[in-house]
Amino acid sequence: MTKPCVICVAITGSLPVKANNPAVPITVSEQIESTQEAFEAGATIVHAHVRNDDETPSSDPEKFARLREGIEKHCPGMIIQFSTGGRSGAGRSRGAMLALAPDMASLAVGSNNFPARVYENPPDLVDWLAAEMRTRGVKPEIEAFDLSHIHQAVAMRRDGRLRGPLYVQFVMGVRNAMPVDRDVFDYYVRTMERLAPDSEWCAAGIGAHQFTLNEWCVAGGGHART
Amino acid sequence: MTKPCVICVAITGSLPVKANNPAVPITVSEQIESTQEAFEAGATIVHAHVRNDDETPSSDPEKFARLREGIEKHCPGMIIQFSTGGRSGAGRSRGAMLALAPDMASLAVGSNNFPARVYENPPDLVDWLAAEMRTRGVKPEIEAFDLSHIHQAVAMRRDGRLRGPLYVQFVMGVRNAMPVDRDVFDYYVRTMERLAPDSEWCAAGIGAHQFTLNEWCVAGGGHART
Ligand SMILES: [Zn+2]
Ligand SMILES: [Zn+2]
Ligand SMILES: [Zn+2]
Ligand SMILES: [Zn+2]
Repeated sequence: MTKPCVICVAITGSLPVKANNPAVPITVSEQIESTQEAFEAGATIVHAHVRNDDETPSSDPEKFARLREGIEKHCPGMIIQFSTGGRSGAGRSRGAMLALAPDMASLAVGSNNFPARVYENPPDLVDWLAAEMRTRGVKPEIEAFDLSHIHQAVAMRRDGRLRGPLYVQFVMGVRNAMPVDRDVFDYYVRTMERLAPDSEWCAAGIGAHQFTLNEWCVAGGGHART
Repeated sequence: MTKPCVICVAITGSLPVKANNPAVPITVSEQIESTQEAFEAGATIVHAHVRNDDETPSSDPEKFARLREGIEKHCPGMIIQFSTGGRSGAGRSRGAMLALAPDMASLAVGSNNFPARVYENPPDLVDWLAAEMRTRGVKPEIEAFDLSHIHQAVAMRRDGRLRGPLYVQFVMGVRNAMPVDRDVFDYYVRTMERLAPDSEWCAAGIGAHQFTLNEWCVAGGGHART
C-alpha cells in the first residue's frame, strides 16, 4: 500500500513577495525562523526555495547552503528538500544546489502550462537532474502536475533513472494545469496503488486550496502539508 | 452520454518521411489520393498536415487550400480537419490556415513533453487559436495529451472560450507523454461522461498503438481512427 506523506512545510514558494504578504519570509534568516516555527508545530520536511535580495526566485547554492546550516542548527532531524523548480533559473542552473547533497529535492518529470506560460521541463534536463540526484544520494520528490507525470516517474524508476520507492507530490489548483478535483485526487491515489504500491505521496495546493487538499489527505489516511 | 467518434483518418502525421515509409503521402496530390482511398473505405473525417517539398512539416495556407480543394472534389461530404500542431511552425503561424475556415482544426490546450522536447502550447497562443476558430466557425478537435487537458477544455467551454459540445481526442503512446494504458483510457472516458456528457471523443495512438486504441474504442461503443 502506498503511504501518504508526513507533514511537510513549504515556507516560501517561489512567487509571493512582501508587497502581497508582509509575513512571507524572504531573507535566509527569515526563512530559518519560519521553518523553526513549523518544526516546533510538528512539520518534519521543509520544502525550500531561496530568493535574491530583490525577492525574485534564486537558485544560488550559497544561499541554499546558509539556509541548510540554519535549519540543521535550529531544527535537528528535520528533512530538508531543495526546490529545483523552473521559476528560479533556466537549464542546469536549476540543479546547481544539488552539489550540496540535500536530503531531498523536488523534481518535475514533465511539462505543463502555468497561469501565463509553459512550465518547461525538457526530457534531457529531467534526465540530468535525476542523474545528479542519483549520484549524490538525494531523494527526489516528484512534482506531479498532471497524470502522465506519475506514469513518467514509474517508467523512470523501471529503467533505473530513479531509485525506488518513489515519493510523489500531487500539485493541484495551478491555473491552466490540474484543478483541485476530488475525483482526480482519488484517481491519483489509485494510480499510485496500482503502479507504485511501495511509494509515498502527498498533495500540494496553492493558497486556500491547500486546506482542501489537507482534508482529502487526512481522509485518505495521511498527513498534511502546511 | 458522450459519443465516441466517427471513423477518421490521419493521412500523414507530421513526422514520417518517405525514407522511413515510401507509402507516406507527402505532396498535396499524394495526400488527396490517399484521403480518397480512406474515404472510399468509409472514413468520414480527414486530419490533415501538409509538408514542404523537403518533407518537413509546413503550415502554408496555400498548400492547405489546394488539399481542401482536391478533397472536396474527390471526397464529397468528407469532414476536413486541419492540424494546428506545433511541429509545423511556431506561434501564430500555426493558425495561419484557419483563415480558410476548414470544418475542423486540431487544438492543443496544454503543454507536455514529447520524445525529445517540450510540446509548447502557451496559454496566450491557445486562447488566440481558440478565438480564431470561434470567429471563423471552425470546430476544434481538442488534442488531450494528458488528463488536465480535458479539464482545461471543459473550463474553456464554461467561460466561453470554446463552444460546446466538445470534441476531444485522447492521444496516447507518445514517449514522455501519456502511455497507452487501458485504465487511463477508461478514466478518460469516465471523465468525459462526468464533465462533458454531451461531447464526443476519439483516441489516437502512434503506429501500432492505433490498433490497440481502436479495439478499446470499439469496446467503448465507438468507431475507430485509421
Ligand atoms: Zn516549490
Ligand atoms: Zn510533501
Ligand atoms: Zn496531427
Ligand atoms: Zn478523431
